[in-house]
Amino acid sequence: MSVTTKATIASFGGKLLKLAHNASTTSCEMNFNLYLPPQATNNPLFRVPLLIYLAGLTCTGDNGAEKGFFQHKASQKGIAILYPDTSPRGLKIPGEDDAYDFGSGAGFYVDATKEPWNKGYQMYSYITEELPRTVFGEFKQIDPERVSIFGHSMGGHGALTLVRIETLLLLRLEEHRLIDEQYLRNPGKYKSVSAFAPISNPMNCPWGEKAFKGYFGEDKTKWAEHDATELVKKWSGPPLDILIDVGTADNFYKQGQLLPEDFIKASEGKGKVNVRFPDGYDHSYFTMASFADDHVGHAARYLIA
Amino acid sequence: MSVTTKATIASFGGKLLKLAHNASTTSCEMNFNLYLPPQATNNPLFRVPLLIYLAGLTCTGDNGAEKGFFQHKASQKGIAILYPDTSPRGLKIPGEDDAYDFGSGAGFYVDATKEPWNKGYQMYSYITEELPRTVFGEFKQIDPERVSIFGHSMGGHGALTLVRIETLLLLRLEEHRLIDEQYLRNPGKYKSVSAFAPISNPMNCPWGEKAFKGYFGEDKTKWAEHDATELVKKWSGPPLDILIDVGTADNFYKQGQLLPEDFIKASEGKGKVNVRFPDGYDHSYFTMASFADDHVGHAARYLIA
Repeated sequence: MSVTTKATIASFGGKLLKLAHNASTTSCEMNFNLYLPPQATNNPLFRVPLLIYLAGLTCTGDNGAEKGFFQHKASQKGIAILYPDTSPRGLKIPGEDDAYDFGSGAGFYVDATKEPWNKGYQMYSYITEELPRTVFGEFKQIDPERVSIFGHSMGGHGALTLVRIETLLLLRLEEHRLIDEQYLRNPGKYKSVSAFAPISNPMNCPWGEKAFKGYFGEDKTKWAEHDATELVKKWSGPPLDILIDVGTADNFYKQGQLLPEDFIKASEGKGKVNVRFPDGYDHSYFTMASFADDHVGHAARYLIA
Repeated sequence: MSVTTKATIASFGGKLLKLAHNASTTSCEMNFNLYLPPQATNNPLFRVPLLIYLAGLTCTGDNGAEKGFFQHKASQKGIAILYPDTSPRGLKIPGEDDAYDFGSGAGFYVDATKEPWNKGYQMYSYITEELPRTVFGEFKQIDPERVSIFGHSMGGHGALTLVRIETLLLLRLEEHRLIDEQYLRNPGKYKSVSAFAPISNPMNCPWGEKAFKGYFGEDKTKWAEHDATELVKKWSGPPLDILIDVGTADNFYKQGQLLPEDFIKASEGKGKVNVRFPDGYDHSYFTMASFADDHVGHAARYLIA
């Protein structure tokens, strides 16, 4: 599980590491970026928390690191940021590179069950288990017990579904000291979640239907396990606290790919699901840069005591 | 001189406009970006100042707008930012696209005198005259009398030489109310200058020698007119105030392409030439993003009363 460092880049007083490792879940070498803020030291008493950023369709781990400006606030707050890739690469599955919204660059953060994609398209296991285990093993500056998640578009879907709502229940219980502590030590359990322009109800939009049919086949119970709107319907615990931004000039919002209203409706009465619709903002990284401080700040409230 | 708007993108509360116009100096259509901060209105009593960002080799007007993070501070201060391209495009001059450091993407902000480049490679006139005239004509929200400039690498050279040091004398005189006011109304006269990793003494580095030989021929008096170190040697007026950042991990600095020490030496005793060498920073936009607030802040001190 060794990690190769391809570059070390100074950024906002900390270091952006361009890394790679051979991942067994995805059956290939995976590139990722890790931002270590200036507060990261090797002193186990001063470990920094981790915020995982899941990118959208066509992206790699580079887009958020270069254009999201999340490092700005993260360097002030002392938060590491993990930027994974969005799919396996180079598996030579027929059709893998044919579409921007399925296959490479479009792993949808699920474990595919359908042939041939089940060989390597295991991004759920990769993001929730193998990658954090690798990172925590290699970077002792990071505290495995303080991890949050956020993402954009397909990565917003990823953030909202990897957190799996049920997990948020556990987080709330943790506040009430009722939780099994062992559970929190597992990687992939998150202290908070936020999203930019998330695909909020993939079962009912073209992107999600294509991806879920391709990765799961026709079994819609499987689809529902990875649909944020379906998951939040089941929520019956303490109040949620989720921040979501969807710009009014987002073409994919207008085309019905994001469906935040479905998520809002399904989460009614279940806490603070703060879905903002900033006027004139589009689906691009310009929107994320503009509201980066808010989203990193949202995570900071849960990650930093 | 009409300007075509190709896109309007919300950014940090303002608008990033992707624009194009047919430029006579460069004999082609030129793309550029203009950031209008939220403070920009059509009220002539509340016009915003302008900061021009000159990009480096291989870049277009997009790089700084996407990865420089300059809009962050500009939106707070109420400063518009103009992001021009780095050369003419598509002139079909033989060899134009053969090298990354000469021809397209490498105009060096000079008016070429040598055939065939003198047909269109007139970036000095374009940046100091045609483009600002076009922008001020089209965007009445911008105050033509408050303009600053900065840039990166080749664009740092551009900023330091377009400002032409002599101009800084006039700026200082302006503070003493001694200046010909008519002069300040011309576009291309700047209130302040700063630079990231500027090519500070192009006559003595491989990039500059290649470019100046190609655009000017062997006449070194012409070279000296566009060499920041040569220009600052002539300075004999009130104290300068220039901010420059050169990272210690900048490979082009290490290779002797930037030569900031020559500029420091030539400017000794001539005011505050604050050349910082931040530890571990490289030549990339990650460095600019990290210190963007400082450079926009430097300009703001001169642009905002």
